[in-house]
Amino acid sequence: MGAADKAEYDVLGIGNAIVDVLAQVDEGFLARQGLVKGAMQLIDEVAAHDLYEAMGPGVEASGGSAANTIAGLASFGRKTAFIGKVRDDELGGIFAHDIRSIGVHFATPPATEGPTTARCLVLVTPDGERTMNTWLGASQNLTVDDVDEDLVKASAITYLEGYLWDPPHAKEAFVKAAGIARQAGRKVALTLSDSFCVDRHRDSFLELIRKQVDILFANEAEIKSLYQVERFDDALHAVRDDCPLAVLTRSAAGSVIVDGGDVHVVGAHPVEQVVDATGAGDLFAAGFLAGFTQGRPVADCARMGALAASHIIQQIGARAIRPFHEVARENGF
Amino acid sequence: MGAADKAEYDVLGIGNAIVDVLAQVDEGFLARQGLVKGAMQLIDEVAAHDLYEAMGPGVEASGGSAANTIAGLASFGRKTAFIGKVRDDELGGIFAHDIRSIGVHFATPPATEGPTTARCLVLVTPDGERTMNTWLGASQNLTVDDVDEDLVKASAITYLEGYLWDPPHAKEAFVKAAGIARQAGRKVALTLSDSFCVDRHRDSFLELIRKQVDILFANEAEIKSLYQVERFDDALHAVRDDCPLAVLTRSAAGSVIVDGGDVHVVGAHPVEQVVDATGAGDLFAAGFLAGFTQGRPVADCARMGALAASHIIQQIGARAIRPFHEVARENGF
Repeated sequence: MGAADKAEYDVLGIGNAIVDVLAQVDEGFLARQGLVKGAMQLIDEVAAHDLYEAMGPGVEASGGSAANTIAGLASFGRKTAFIGKVRDDELGGIFAHDIRSIGVHFATPPATEGPTTARCLVLVTPDGERTMNTWLGASQNLTVDDVDEDLVKASAITYLEGYLWDPPHAKEAFVKAAGIARQAGRKVALTLSDSFCVDRHRDSFLELIRKQVDILFANEAEIKSLYQVERFDDALHAVRDDCPLAVLTRSAAGSVIVDGGDVHVVGAHPVEQVVDATGAGDLFAAGFLAGFTQGRPVADCARMGALAASHIIQQIGARAIRPFHEVARENGF
Repeated sequence: MGAADKAEYDVLGIGNAIVDVLAQVDEGFLARQGLVKGAMQLIDEVAAHDLYEAMGPGVEASGGSAANTIAGLASFGRKTAFIGKVRDDELGGIFAHDIRSIGVHFATPPATEGPTTARCLVLVTPDGERTMNTWLGASQNLTVDDVDEDLVKASAITYLEGYLWDPPHAKEAFVKAAGIARQAGRKVALTLSDSFCVDRHRDSFLELIRKQVDILFANEAEIKSLYQVERFDDALHAVRDDCPLAVLTRSAAGSVIVDGGDVHVVGAHPVEQVVDATGAGDLFAAGFLAGFTQGRPVADCARMGALAASHIIQQIGARAIRPFHEVARENGF
């Protein structure tokens, strides 16, 4: 089967299936809880319980990094699918409903025993920055059996989140999917997710990127962590040799696209006020891949990514309240 | 025991314990589902399932009319308690966490069997109006046994939502609480909740108001429905004879306070854009009662109500994201 075969899905995402619990906190709360602002940390069930007890009232919304990207792509009108593990509990039902209700194909069977659906306690400070605390729950039980080979083959791009490296079995599922996709002449995309996640899995990320990744997404902290360099330019030069297409985001400073020998620098989309940074990177990837799967030039793809990111950080939560296809049309895409 | 005894709580709320599922829809969706825009309708479990399947992705947040008012009062810094029934499931845990985390005393034991925690499918149209579809679930199992007599006696005001008239046993709990409060020299407040709810229970509402209610909250549609009159002024004259203090809200036209022989007309607080009308009435009551339990003149109480209502409709969901005590201070209260 060649890449020229028409794919049924534009993008298949594989990631942790998580429900976010978003709450407003002040800086003092982060300090008292000993949390690193802006980072994602993994916590166990007891710590999740204790932190939840300590925090204020929350708003629950479907989350998960790759799942947010896929939801964003669906909102742009692209054809999408998702693989991820929930439990057969109320939050699992919410996750499944939300992703299916926007037209995403989601058929991973929920776990009928073991830990509950994963949740991420997202603490949003007055500056809009978010600090994430994830209890992986049922996500940990994603296995190679959950990777539907036909679905991977039927997808133009298989998009994987670096966070999937944390649950031990999920990593195998991740590697299996990448192998199937490449063998079928499809593309593999990877997001590094978080600089601490890169720290935990640097060597295996590098190996995967060099062998099997066609499109790499990373922010400045992540790509510098990957190559253990101080300067962004050094990371940029390093990634050029390792991956055919790297999409590097720099928050308000815009993005840099390393497309083989070409480098495109694209500005950020204007933002009036950052309400909640949750999902900025995920939605940048969504906008980029929406353009990419429409065959647009990579600089335009980056502009669509910047547009989607700017919209998501001006609302609470990582799933778009307004459909992106409308936002895109209003902005000339 | 006299009213002069210092109360431990400013306000005790008794109401349905509900988790809201908020989703954006267009007008066509309401039409296709045959829903009356702006109203609250009760639906059974099957209808709730079907409507949820048909609607888009949601955001979950603790709700319930009296519970929203109590949460608002806590946000204003008042001492509060709540009685309402959830199940021992995930959404029940979310409801209990959210209300306790803001300092509300909430000790009603969750049901260990029977229907799941109540949910309200709140459909928000582009104009910010909300159409509510409630599956009462575990709320239906609130009984007289859940009314803690000491708690009622220890509360300066017991605040009851009209919606509690719908579950058959809850009505008895409601009447019991009103009796205890009055006998202890405390005040009873009632909100009529919804004009269709008034239609369902007009006679027993009138009986309760005439005998046991000290403070009545209603919007224009509700008070006109109660007295089956066409003109607001006719309702105003009728309520003067039935209740010592009536707080009548008229959306953007402000509010009218009928305080025995005195009538105060108070303007609405300016609103830039209505994002989601969910909780407007509940939070007006919160602001009013916050001022009232501080001993302020009723016109000032109405201004505090207008302030709280204006804030809640400029955000998604019925629980305040910013603490009201800060908002109140900034506005000179």
